[in-house]
Amino acid sequence: MSDAPQALESYLSGAWRRGEGVETELVDPVHGTVLATASARGLDLKAALDHARNKGGPALRALTFAERAKLLGAIADVLVANRAKYEAIAIANSGNTRIDAAIDIDGGIGTLKYYARLGAPLGDATFLLDDKPVRLAKAENFQAIHLLAPRHGVAVHINAFNFPSWGLWEKAAVALLAGVPVLAKPASSTAMLTHEMVRDVIAANVVPEGALSLLCGGAGDLLDKVTGEDVIAFTGSSETAGRILRHPNILARGVHVNIEADSVNAALLSPGASDGAFDAFIKEVGREMTVKAGQKCTAIRRVFAPAERADAVAEALLARLKKTTLGDPRNESVRMGPVVTRAQQAAAFDGIGKIAKEAEILTGGASAPAIDGIDPSKSAFVAPTLMRVADGTSANAVHDTEVFGPAATIIPYKTEAEAFALVARGGGSLVASVYGDDRSFFARAVAALGASHGRLLMVEPSIADAHTGHGIVMPQCHHGGPGRAGNGEELGGLHGLRLYHQRLAVQGSTDLLTELQAKAYALH
Amino acid sequence: MSDAPQALESYLSGAWRRGEGVETELVDPVHGTVLATASARGLDLKAALDHARNKGGPALRALTFAERAKLLGAIADVLVANRAKYEAIAIANSGNTRIDAAIDIDGGIGTLKYYARLGAPLGDATFLLDDKPVRLAKAENFQAIHLLAPRHGVAVHINAFNFPSWGLWEKAAVALLAGVPVLAKPASSTAMLTHEMVRDVIAANVVPEGALSLLCGGAGDLLDKVTGEDVIAFTGSSETAGRILRHPNILARGVHVNIEADSVNAALLSPGASDGAFDAFIKEVGREMTVKAGQKCTAIRRVFAPAERADAVAEALLARLKKTTLGDPRNESVRMGPVVTRAQQAAAFDGIGKIAKEAEILTGGASAPAIDGIDPSKSAFVAPTLMRVADGTSANAVHDTEVFGPAATIIPYKTEAEAFALVARGGGSLVASVYGDDRSFFARAVAALGASHGRLLMVEPSIADAHTGHGIVMPQCHHGGPGRAGNGEELGGLHGLRLYHQRLAVQGSTDLLTELQAKAYALH
Repeated sequence: MSDAPQALESYLSGAWRRGEGVETELVDPVHGTVLATASARGLDLKAALDHARNKGGPALRALTFAERAKLLGAIADVLVANRAKYEAIAIANSGNTRIDAAIDIDGGIGTLKYYARLGAPLGDATFLLDDKPVRLAKAENFQAIHLLAPRHGVAVHINAFNFPSWGLWEKAAVALLAGVPVLAKPASSTAMLTHEMVRDVIAANVVPEGALSLLCGGAGDLLDKVTGEDVIAFTGSSETAGRILRHPNILARGVHVNIEADSVNAALLSPGASDGAFDAFIKEVGREMTVKAGQKCTAIRRVFAPAERADAVAEALLARLKKTTLGDPRNESVRMGPVVTRAQQAAAFDGIGKIAKEAEILTGGASAPAIDGIDPSKSAFVAPTLMRVADGTSANAVHDTEVFGPAATIIPYKTEAEAFALVARGGGSLVASVYGDDRSFFARAVAALGASHGRLLMVEPSIADAHTGHGIVMPQCHHGGPGRAGNGEELGGLHGLRLYHQRLAVQGSTDLLTELQAKAYALH
Repeated sequence: MSDAPQALESYLSGAWRRGEGVETELVDPVHGTVLATASARGLDLKAALDHARNKGGPALRALTFAERAKLLGAIADVLVANRAKYEAIAIANSGNTRIDAAIDIDGGIGTLKYYARLGAPLGDATFLLDDKPVRLAKAENFQAIHLLAPRHGVAVHINAFNFPSWGLWEKAAVALLAGVPVLAKPASSTAMLTHEMVRDVIAANVVPEGALSLLCGGAGDLLDKVTGEDVIAFTGSSETAGRILRHPNILARGVHVNIEADSVNAALLSPGASDGAFDAFIKEVGREMTVKAGQKCTAIRRVFAPAERADAVAEALLARLKKTTLGDPRNESVRMGPVVTRAQQAAAFDGIGKIAKEAEILTGGASAPAIDGIDPSKSAFVAPTLMRVADGTSANAVHDTEVFGPAATIIPYKTEAEAFALVARGGGSLVASVYGDDRSFFARAVAALGASHGRLLMVEPSIADAHTGHGIVMPQCHHGGPGRAGNGEELGGLHGLRLYHQRLAVQGSTDLLTELQAKAYALH
């Protein structure tokens, strides 16, 4: 290429700003071409946070819920109008197939539209009312209500590389509807799409000044500058999550942090499952392994099968994976592209290697696959990798290691109790899916697995074609898992607004509380 | 005393166990007499957590909400039957007056009874249902519900020294109702009351084995042994909170931690307040400064007054504080006892010293007061201390320093906007109270202060005698504040159960979801 790579800019304090030098090169993971560079070096992040807090916050809080909902609709309209160029960027910078790109781009637009629809009926309200008024004393004229008040700080969104569009908008839609300005920091390696989308939205002038800021490049001293009024929502690795959570300024100010981190999600074929349930199970595991080259935090990593059917499961999955053509996603016949960077490829190989010490590799493995026309020294491909452990109880790595790529491991189980105990070895996960026909088994699965998951998908043959998928995050549903998955809570309809509000009791005269309730939308 | 001090034991893994040696001496803060000793050295905390998790958890989850509510009632009955001896312990070990002791003891019993009443109507349910079922796709037979499932781990309660009874039961009542076993670790210095109460409850055999454990002494390796299934609820200093939050095992496993920490709470006299509002303000500030010798996390620390009324506020408070007779609380004429230890006395003096660098001391101060019959070298008295800053904007320590004793500082303000900005300088607080007559001012206060508080009390003269107080935590109301106060959420009626449940979406066939809903109590 004769063009110099594009230098991504940040939108901070109401202007596009370029950092010094180059912190990260953004690369096409198929051919290794440098597409763009990012740097936030030297940018004044304290000023940017203050601008969002002091300009964007009051401007958003001056709007009603219905007005903010309209704003989300306007953002979605801008993105729809520019969709074609986003797809090209996703293919080039993320190695996405068109289907992968659609999940990211349309997932983001869909979430904005969902919250635009959901927020409209909240009308002129500027608070949310939780629960009913409660009496506290003998006197009837003294009571309490519970309000949710929008936070006065900035929603600092630190996003993951796998969803530069959806990750941006699923967080921003909720914060903006709540009346909280957003400063989004995409992962540098795939930030081109985020950058382009925010550029279009800012240029269209559909959000108030200070309501949407973008930080392209390293986080610099961002964590030193946040205050107790701000909220951080992070999606990414446990390691980075730990760095945020133990940061001295975060601890000293009690900054609220929401985490979505590593999750070793499970799919469970129930004992005695019918052929219909078996087929639904195989189809979903196969799809989850290969969509976005396995780079979804919700993807199935552990595949539980009754011991006597483990061979049949392996055979059916191998047959399915064989059809997954790897290659340049610009080629229409290609079913799976590379992972996003060579560093991610190395991390995936490392994880496969760890699990393989206790497992047999049935297909794929921890080395670059040979693909016609692709230079393995420049590309970031990982072959679909299916492993199998002999004994899930004695194996450890399979329960602890999230290979962020197209890899999964079959774990045979002997009894229902063993299966539930092994699923819980994940230490807290975003989602598990269960495939079967017996409703009493599903009910026992909810009792056994509910506490360690943020979502359970129960697939019986009657809904095999109707369900929305193990790995697809629906904005109507809770997203976030306990324990290792980070204890986060996002989305889930209006529930998601809670992250950006402070819940408080207001105690006072019944007359005052009646006046306050008139300004609040009753959640129940 | 000829008796050797009592060696407090811990109730772990189903038996009373004594730690090696002495970690802490428990002292009468009036005379310095050693009353008891505590040590948890050498106790097997991993085994204790496993016992609670594997015995207590399943036993509690096998009960319905109504059965667990009955269990809370039975605990309350045991405590009521033994109340007299608890008061004597509170007076001796905490330096409480009888009124102070009643707040602690009856607050605990009252909270148990409240949750017993609240839980009974939940009946045979074992889950909670949040929100309504939602459609996710075109097909009507595939939907989602949101359930709250009780956590499968242990509720580890690390409690503060100021409420050895209330602090124990306000946390335990909610966890036990949720079906989660409790391991309570009281602060060692005042653990006698907690120890005696748990002894009585265990002896009465009203809770299932493993449902209630007690750790008297240091926390040892407790934080190394908790898992992602457990939940920690901590009340105490920000410093200790930070040690918990950044503990490697807590971070690695994503243990959910709820924090109630330092809070520099405010009371605000509104501009143009009537005499009735003024009187209510003075009465509440005076009471908050002296009840429990100011050792309430909700106590008023910052006293905001319109600049032109700051002299009148100072005069009225000084007149009130003059009536606060200090001394041995066994003497009926005494209105205020010591703080709980000489270490706490030193910490209070240190805090007063910090604030006094930017403030005038109007009464009291950072040295031991002279009291007839009390040896200042052995006792832990702090005089009621009222300070005043000239300019709240330039002062810093007054907004940052929680003196955990009978101390408060008057801060004059010039405008409403300045008052709201100064209150928010607390960096997030449990509670603020506002005194006035103008409902539109109250409404503006809610908009300005709601985001930085967990509770707001709005006192107009009509409810001056009816309200439940600035510092009294009612179980019906949200307890917890943002930012420096720790971002915790406790109590608040059934909302408090959320801490001990995992919220999850269950996606499945409409028929399955109907079956699951039949086992769940609908929160709304």
